[in-house]
Amino acid sequence: MPAPPRHLIRLADLSDEALGDVLDLSLRLKRRPARTPLSASTVGMLFFRGSLRTRTSLEAAVQQLGGHTINLTATSDFWDLEDREGSVMDGRAPEHVKDAAAVLSRYVDALAIRPDPQGQTWALDRRDAQIMAWSRHATVPVFNMESALWHPLQALADLFTLRETLGEVRGRRLALVWVHSPEPASPAVAHSLLHAALRSGMEVSVAHPPGFSLDEGVLEEARALADQNRTTVRLGLGLEEALEGAEIVYARSWQSIGDYGNLTLEASRRGRLTDWKIGEAAMERTAGARLMHAMPVRRNVEVTDAILDGPCSLVHQQAENRLHTQKALLQLLLSQRA
Amino acid sequence: MPAPPRHLIRLADLSDEALGDVLDLSLRLKRRPARTPLSASTVGMLFFRGSLRTRTSLEAAVQQLGGHTINLTATSDFWDLEDREGSVMDGRAPEHVKDAAAVLSRYVDALAIRPDPQGQTWALDRRDAQIMAWSRHATVPVFNMESALWHPLQALADLFTLRETLGEVRGRRLALVWVHSPEPASPAVAHSLLHAALRSGMEVSVAHPPGFSLDEGVLEEARALADQNRTTVRLGLGLEEALEGAEIVYARSWQSIGDYGNLTLEASRRGRLTDWKIGEAAMERTAGARLMHAMPVRRNVEVTDAILDGPCSLVHQQAENRLHTQKALLQLLLSQRA
Amino acid sequence: MPAPPRHLIRLADLSDEALGDVLDLSLRLKRRPARTPLSASTVGMLFFRGSLRTRTSLEAAVQQLGGHTINLTATSDFWDLEDREGSVMDGRAPEHVKDAAAVLSRYVDALAIRPDPQGQTWALDRRDAQIMAWSRHATVPVFNMESALWHPLQALADLFTLRETLGEVRGRRLALVWVHSPEPASPAVAHSLLHAALRSGMEVSVAHPPGFSLDEGVLEEARALADQNRTTVRLGLGLEEALEGAEIVYARSWQSIGDYGNLTLEASRRGRLTDWKIGEAAMERTAGARLMHAMPVRRNVEVTDAILDGPCSLVHQQAENRLHTQKALLQLLLSQRA
Repeated sequence: MPAPPRHLIRLADLSDEALGDVLDLSLRLKRRPARTPLSASTVGMLFFRGSLRTRTSLEAAVQQLGGHTINLTATSDFWDLEDREGSVMDGRAPEHVKDAAAVLSRYVDALAIRPDPQGQTWALDRRDAQIMAWSRHATVPVFNMESALWHPLQALADLFTLRETLGEVRGRRLALVWVHSPEPASPAVAHSLLHAALRSGMEVSVAHPPGFSLDEGVLEEARALADQNRTTVRLGLGLEEALEGAEIVYARSWQSIGDYGNLTLEASRRGRLTDWKIGEAAMERTAGARLMHAMPVRRNVEVTDAILDGPCSLVHQQAENRLHTQKALLQLLLSQRA
Repeated sequence: MPAPPRHLIRLADLSDEALGDVLDLSLRLKRRPARTPLSASTVGMLFFRGSLRTRTSLEAAVQQLGGHTINLTATSDFWDLEDREGSVMDGRAPEHVKDAAAVLSRYVDALAIRPDPQGQTWALDRRDAQIMAWSRHATVPVFNMESALWHPLQALADLFTLRETLGEVRGRRLALVWVHSPEPASPAVAHSLLHAALRSGMEVSVAHPPGFSLDEGVLEEARALADQNRTTVRLGLGLEEALEGAEIVYARSWQSIGDYGNLTLEASRRGRLTDWKIGEAAMERTAGARLMHAMPVRRNVEVTDAILDGPCSLVHQQAENRLHTQKALLQLLLSQRA
Repeated sequence: MPAPPRHLIRLADLSDEALGDVLDLSLRLKRRPARTPLSASTVGMLFFRGSLRTRTSLEAAVQQLGGHTINLTATSDFWDLEDREGSVMDGRAPEHVKDAAAVLSRYVDALAIRPDPQGQTWALDRRDAQIMAWSRHATVPVFNMESALWHPLQALADLFTLRETLGEVRGRRLALVWVHSPEPASPAVAHSLLHAALRSGMEVSVAHPPGFSLDEGVLEEARALADQNRTTVRLGLGLEEALEGAEIVYARSWQSIGDYGNLTLEASRRGRLTDWKIGEAAMERTAGARLMHAMPVRRNVEVTDAILDGPCSLVHQQAENRLHTQKALLQLLLSQRA
């Protein structure tokens, strides 16, 4: 087996061989859960933002492998951490990430971090300064539990679900469609999925209203991935155009990068886009597509009950696969170190 | 052994045979703690309201049986959940209970839920919509950790403590007496105890000031239970009347259902009732009764120090029994599924 | 082995023999971690104030020994607890420490408590009423995770680090120096270290600006310890005076006991003391000293980056030693009881 990566900040940190190993092991673990490889391991989980699925599925994954978790929640358990090098720390943060990361690395075997982007300017948040500081200073593996830019653990489960549903995914057609939601979410899920699908050779169409383009740097890499993998990515389509011929519809709401930090402007732009929703009419335009969504999903706003509760929905299976793929990842990345 | 119930929302979900099994196993586990039946199990605990005893005793119970817990606290870890079918989710709640329950059921082996009633109207809260939605949508067993209407885990420990203290409980006399407290609590503990005691054939007297009747639907069932079990329930007594001849005094403060949602009116009504308190004079009216209380107890307001710290108090033993009865319940309900 | 103490509220609760055993076992555990002695134990951790290092290192210690933790955080999980005997509890606190301690003692095998001093008057807070109430009412061992007066778990790690660095510590020179920080911290770390060092026969110099003397009762005991152990303690020195000839510099910011409870006065006094900082010039005055700090450390305010990241810094090693010494302590105090 190839050397696993040091950290998992984005899916690109896994080589093709390592990614294949994770997905194969996910399948074996889903069929017959194994227990023990992490019996001596503790995973520290730090949440600077709340989480339901990520937290529960990762804690369950560690426990099912025989390991332990320590769960730290920003507001109640710790404090602001400084992430700028060389700063004079006379402000709010009493501790530097470099010290927190070094110290926690001596107590636990891996660190899973969900940072909380500041939400002021995209140019700043897209640098993922918090999670990058953790990965720079930790001496144990760091898992990104969703930063401003990436959500690799979701993308792993998505890829596994695509394989499970389609078999060979190369050449199959995925429509990644923006849907309306009253609350802005980060584009991280869409970014990681886009790269994962292209890297696997899928043909991807991305639909969104004007003003909701994904991150330009991510798109540039996406075009290069499409070329490398001899497939195509079509960007900025209308909803109907993207659904045409799709085999998988992946619905996701993400915030406008152009309006980033301006909640009033963003809310007013969004308010006019309530028809970006997946219902029966939308699904009928596809080639009998299945529906994916990373959740949480606002029912009858993003996707209708009829679709979510109908036979084309993969959402609960997709959520379950978080568990199996994370177990595989932990087993491959941690048990080698033990 | 009979098939265990799917969920435990109220004590009535346990058949007489299953209830007997739980209490018998509680005794065996209290005498000689066993470890291992849940070695492969994870229990997810969701607190929409805080908890000290319930949380610690249930976590300890799971751990002592060799299992794991995942502890989710509403404010820091997750978010508002919608529980109405078919609603258009454009409000505060980003996720529906049906999705949260379905997804978490794929990660854990049981879910223990402490919902947070809205506190506006009793007619609404008495429906227990939150916990019922969880039990409808979860595919693993759901344990009610105290809803507006019921607290079955407390009632189990209460029943075990009554048995331990009295031996055969049939025909023995229980006084359930309302006591003053500056803070309204739900009538759930009183409801579950009332049914548990009548079902066991105890003679029950309920004392409370005018305006503090228990839920009418619960009382109707209580009268039926008394008939079925050839015993008696006397309702709406004065404090002294209820204490006369009692062998167990169970003190509990509960909020006025009539004033429900009107905190000012409730506070002013309560303010005139500070003499509803259990002290030495009150206990002297009984037939040498022992005192029970589900805690937390406001000392020298609900019950005096002299009684709580004296020989007639069962309160710490009663709290300890939460541990043993919950272990028995978990072992019977979960190890069969494993 | 001598009988271990019932509780660990301050380091003085450990006899010389027990302290020696803990430090020796810490070394063996650091070299070759053992797993199993606590396989049947659960440690309940109650945080009335947040914590990063203490919480993670203690949870990891328990888990690495095969035990379990239950983690309760004041704001989300429980409530105000009354600690005065005999009070009429009609105020905010719905429960008395005596009941919480008695009940939790029946669920877990040890309780680790981080109280939250009120911060109004030092004469009151120095009584450590909260932690003392817990130790009085708990029937299982209580570990102090930092009260107003003491931080014995930090002192244990400090002593182990001093031994590791200096070998024999008797007669070696420690400078405990106050440093500036915009946020007041309690003197607990300084108190526990001062006694631990003198008890081990170190020569201690304490430097601080006028108005920042340590607690008078603690200092009186310190003088007695110095006499008993035939060593010296010099108090109230200037920074340069204390550094002269030091082999260990222990930097720590603590609040003014004189200004206690008066945040404005304290802030204005502190604002003039920004030159109480450890940088290269300060370290050059010493006898090639190593730097210790209990963390969190405000970089370039308390100590400069150059020193913290340079070869003389022991801070990360010192933090790591929290883990090993706590494992040794738990093993000696809990496994005997099992």
